[in-house]
Amino acid sequence: MARRLTEDSILRKLRRAAPLIGDDCAVVRPRPGEDWLFTTDFCIEGVHFPLDWTGEQVGHQALGRSLSDIAAMGGTPRFCLVSLALAPWTGPKWIDAFYRGLLKLANETGTQLAGGDLSHSAKLTCDVMACGSVKHGKALRRSGAQVGDAIYISGPLGGWTHKKAIVPRLDVGRKLLGKAHACMDLSDGLALDLHRLCRESQVAAELDAVPLLPGATLHQALHDGEDYELLYTVPPDVRVPGIRIGTVTAGQAGTVKLAGKRLRPEGYDHVHRT
Amino acid sequence: MARRLTEDSILRKLRRAAPLIGDDCAVVRPRPGEDWLFTTDFCIEGVHFPLDWTGEQVGHQALGRSLSDIAAMGGTPRFCLVSLALAPWTGPKWIDAFYRGLLKLANETGTQLAGGDLSHSAKLTCDVMACGSVKHGKALRRSGAQVGDAIYISGPLGGWTHKKAIVPRLDVGRKLLGKAHACMDLSDGLALDLHRLCRESQVAAELDAVPLLPGATLHQALHDGEDYELLYTVPPDVRVPGIRIGTVTAGQAGTVKLAGKRLRPEGYDHVHRT
Repeated sequence: MARRLTEDSILRKLRRAAPLIGDDCAVVRPRPGEDWLFTTDFCIEGVHFPLDWTGEQVGHQALGRSLSDIAAMGGTPRFCLVSLALAPWTGPKWIDAFYRGLLKLANETGTQLAGGDLSHSAKLTCDVMACGSVKHGKALRRSGAQVGDAIYISGPLGGWTHKKAIVPRLDVGRKLLGKAHACMDLSDGLALDLHRLCRESQVAAELDAVPLLPGATLHQALHDGEDYELLYTVPPDVRVPGIRIGTVTAGQAGTVKLAGKRLRPEGYDHVHRT
Repeated sequence: MARRLTEDSILRKLRRAAPLIGDDCAVVRPRPGEDWLFTTDFCIEGVHFPLDWTGEQVGHQALGRSLSDIAAMGGTPRFCLVSLALAPWTGPKWIDAFYRGLLKLANETGTQLAGGDLSHSAKLTCDVMACGSVKHGKALRRSGAQVGDAIYISGPLGGWTHKKAIVPRLDVGRKLLGKAHACMDLSDGLALDLHRLCRESQVAAELDAVPLLPGATLHQALHDGEDYELLYTVPPDVRVPGIRIGTVTAGQAGTVKLAGKRLRPEGYDHVHRT
């Protein structure tokens, strides 16, 4: 039993790092005055990460994707549940590395590993649910952008091509509380995500320029996704961190223009590519 | 776009049934005096459901597995997040049927669909996170069984072979609050799950007999899993619903005997079969 990979043997190891694990459910006591934020994100072999990534990289990315959603609403991470379906090629060393990468980011961001599920499948499949908290009624939404707002991003775009590790912008998100009118994270490309933010807010957007990562193309930044920077709008006189890229306008809801030219709302589609 | 299957088209439809969906995270306001229970369970093609099941059956089962964990701790379901990775064979009709099956059970049990994720994979993969609530400090645990307790199950076992739909025992779980010393749900077979409960509680167990579903064998009931009945221990003089099957004893922690013979703690292992 000691050398064999079983559910109980993996759990015994994990419980040393994550003592909350044990019962049928994780039990958590909310604090008064807080709203709770819940999000869940897949991380699937060949879809969300390339096959040459290490277990540590995949563990980091799997949690990073969910924490980016917490950041987008100005939340502070509390805990996560990790569902992991092992592929035929995953051995004990890879699993150790996966949880090491995940727990490192969890520790850095104050996220407790509170439970999860283990299974097996044809492709390595991970699904991480993250919970964060924010003061009652203060969460940043997609739907609050107002005409005249400045549009910002938290950093240059086009990162997916370079397979960069996600840095969830939790600090930026928290600094936007009470300042930004609308916020979301960029997971499917600026063109599609800004279209979504504008549609939810019943406004349009005009972009001046899109700052790119070294080596990235404009097309990658607009349509490739997986950047995990924050996208937010603030009243023009309010100071926030980030790079100003455009202005919210009164055009047809959801319309996004770059240097006067309308952008098609096309980006990464998780069901299949558009 | 109308006839094409895209992430946004699936979401538009879902939001009619689940208006909470929309932002990067679901926002939920806890109620004072409650603890929250969180659990997550995979439902993977060929592992957790046979290929001839309808979308409705899979949707029911995917949520049912998680609600069974909420039941095991005496909780009342609140909401769920549903991550769904579509297989190449899943079309719009199957997806509609999946959410129909899931939402039917959600409505019956008071569970709100609050969000999730969509992706694609080689095998249909679903992961459902369910949240339930229970009064502060009242959740049923695995670790409280005491020597002399009567051991109960909520119904006869051996159901997986017959592919029966999960009926999460939420009513039984709630009736056990303040009465049962320990409780869990039977997902991996009575022999392995009772071994786990006894190990957590530092006790042993002696079973008199195991009630079987029509057509099920004793081996199936002990080692096959996927029954989703509750397993619980109560002081011998306390009345609870269910079938009494044995007694908690002072033997070596984790030891389970049936009619005097020691059972091996073998059952369904989610990483691979033991």
